[in-house]
Amino acid sequence: MTATTIPNDYTVRRIESRDFEGAKTALAGLTIVGEISQKEFDSILNYWDSVLLPTGEQAYNTFVITVKDTERVAAIGTIFIEKKIIHNGGLVGHIEDIAVNSDFRGQKLGKILIDYLSSVGKQLGCYKTILDCDVKNVGFYEKCDYKEAGIEMQIRY
Amino acid sequence: MTATTIPNDYTVRRIESRDFEGAKTALAGLTIVGEISQKEFDSILNYWDSVLLPTGEQAYNTFVITVKDTERVAAIGTIFIEKKIIHNGGLVGHIEDIAVNSDFRGQKLGKILIDYLSSVGKQLGCYKTILDCDVKNVGFYEKCDYKEAGIEMQIRY
Repeated sequence: MTATTIPNDYTVRRIESRDFEGAKTALAGLTIVGEISQKEFDSILNYWDSVLLPTGEQAYNTFVITVKDTERVAAIGTIFIEKKIIHNGGLVGHIEDIAVNSDFRGQKLGKILIDYLSSVGKQLGCYKTILDCDVKNVGFYEKCDYKEAGIEMQIRY
Repeated sequence: MTATTIPNDYTVRRIESRDFEGAKTALAGLTIVGEISQKEFDSILNYWDSVLLPTGEQAYNTFVITVKDTERVAAIGTIFIEKKIIHNGGLVGHIEDIAVNSDFRGQKLGKILIDYLSSVGKQLGCYKTILDCDVKNVGFYEKCDYKEAGIEMQIRY
């Protein structure tokens, strides 16, 4: 992970209740967010905070890149840590729901966020981190030091 | 999910402490398991049991297919349930670490297990379940009603 330096006017931090509108706006560029309320948003954050690893650290780690002055959410992403039997009871990071608000494209914030989440996975003791992406985004993730590992399959209910 | 009927001499149930050797043997056909002890195995099962969804149901759901008479583990697999902001605070199932002991191949136990885990994801309220596989296994998962959805990328530490 050749971490890209974050521009001076941005901060990376854990998601908070006040990121409700900004998180929804960024994620709406990725997929359907739906009609969640501030209260429902807060309850998701509280739930995430409650899920701990055997080490006592948090399993859900959602970070935002915000504009220092305005606290606007420029980008959002999650690394969830899974406990396995394999690899000596190892941990695997799952990167999920990466979104950059369209007003903030072209500043390498996507790469900064992926590098950051990858380093969180390493710090928490994962032996690897995985993610699923569209074919068109493979080149981007290769620049973040990821390699193709398989095919994502899904079933919708 | 056109569930395949389980043969009469097998049972599907949640993993238990007594599956220590059988689970390790099945998983060793998939990847490195390492030198975990019975105590470490039990502590992983206890940890998994402790991780609950907002609904109070279990987030980690690891099942084994066992031989009724001998309790030998013929197959093992996990569906982990992730809580998201997107899709109205939706749930996504992640199928992980599917393994059939080589002594039990050719009896459709893999499909039975995937159908079972997929139905657990549906019952728990997921809007979709995803999994990653080798290119050579895409045809198998298509028979389990999965469709290609993207590329798995990984970084190893």
